[in-house]
Amino acid sequence: MTGTPRPRAVAFDVNETLTDLAPVARAFTRLGLGPDSVPWWFAVLLRDGMALAAAGGAARFADLARGALAEVAGVAGHSLPDGAGDEVLDALRRVPVHPDVMPALERLHDAGVPAYALTNGSAPLARDVLDAAGVTPWLTDVLSVDATGHWKPRPEPYHYAADQAGVPPGALALVAVHPWDVHGAYSAGLVTGWVDRGGRPYPAVFARPTVQAADITGVVDGLLDLSAV
Amino acid sequence: MTGTPRPRAVAFDVNETLTDLAPVARAFTRLGLGPDSVPWWFAVLLRDGMALAAAGGAARFADLARGALAEVAGVAGHSLPDGAGDEVLDALRRVPVHPDVMPALERLHDAGVPAYALTNGSAPLARDVLDAAGVTPWLTDVLSVDATGHWKPRPEPYHYAADQAGVPPGALALVAVHPWDVHGAYSAGLVTGWVDRGGRPYPAVFARPTVQAADITGVVDGLLDLSAV
Repeated sequence: MTGTPRPRAVAFDVNETLTDLAPVARAFTRLGLGPDSVPWWFAVLLRDGMALAAAGGAARFADLARGALAEVAGVAGHSLPDGAGDEVLDALRRVPVHPDVMPALERLHDAGVPAYALTNGSAPLARDVLDAAGVTPWLTDVLSVDATGHWKPRPEPYHYAADQAGVPPGALALVAVHPWDVHGAYSAGLVTGWVDRGGRPYPAVFARPTVQAADITGVVDGLLDLSAV
Repeated sequence: MTGTPRPRAVAFDVNETLTDLAPVARAFTRLGLGPDSVPWWFAVLLRDGMALAAAGGAARFADLARGALAEVAGVAGHSLPDGAGDEVLDALRRVPVHPDVMPALERLHDAGVPAYALTNGSAPLARDVLDAAGVTPWLTDVLSVDATGHWKPRPEPYHYAADQAGVPPGALALVAVHPWDVHGAYSAGLVTGWVDRGGRPYPAVFARPTVQAADITGVVDGLLDLSAV
């Protein structure tokens, strides 16, 4: 029997993968924007961040978030009050983690597999959010792509995470809810896990994940079930 | 006096820059999706295309369009009828060009400056749309990034267009409604023109355009007003 070997470390995407953006949705509602404006806003934010990644530049997550909010409101013909960008960024600092995160991290800990966070956002913001949720004791480190100057899904951030974990790329798993992140990690040589929270079919244009499940615990179980080599 | 020299050729982005996606919006309405779902869908489509550009891959525009439609409908909790993807792609083949396109191309022709189309979509689809609108006689060629295997805003498509026009990158202008396209062209060494159709503020994260105006004719006038060298 051959197959993908069991990873020796696991890196988790943060926004939407570990965290639940519901407080951001409530901020959008207070600003007079509809419920669909949140996934629209996040798609615009990522589109522009990835455009910079493709063109060879980089920008702060907060600046991208403000620009995307202005575009969504502008196209929707909606005037934003002063401080709207601050309100959304404040909400991003108050997001909880999904309930399946803690048991998944406990299972990795019990199995002796170190866990990392790897975000396109800033490390201090991610650390604040994960601290508030009480999960940082279960993480070996909170890593940001800012250290590489390049966003995921470029290969540099995945290789940086592998370096930090002290393992080759093929011994690191990336777990994400975003298919583009799974694709980037696969292209960089990592093992991949897709969290299928429902409602978002896996696009045919992206490389398939090594394992997939409906929650993070299921993905971690799938990774731990891979054969040790 | 120094400044950006007048470009010796001009390349126009196609989707939303030359073309009006109103028929696509009508298709979305027939499918039961709201008006905001069109810019949301296009942001998802571009996000995934740019993710592939950043990760080093490529995909057909049509496949990205189908994947983005499935995501938007899924997140919105809306079931799509069979053939929904075909209906949206058919609508993309029937889009008109904006009324300011023809006079802009005529001005370039009168000034002896060759005009090109440069699309992240397929060249045959863009050619069909531009043929139907009667503007291909005013274009020296319709170019697609497919010839390079890389999407804009990576540098390769802009350099390819300059090669096709027989000019160095600094003598080619890229005209687009999308700030990320302006940024990519700037990063690749081109002169840039941003068409500000209103409603979308220019994000602070992107390099500013050389010229900007509220319509394509205004942008072309601005480019032609640059000093010849």
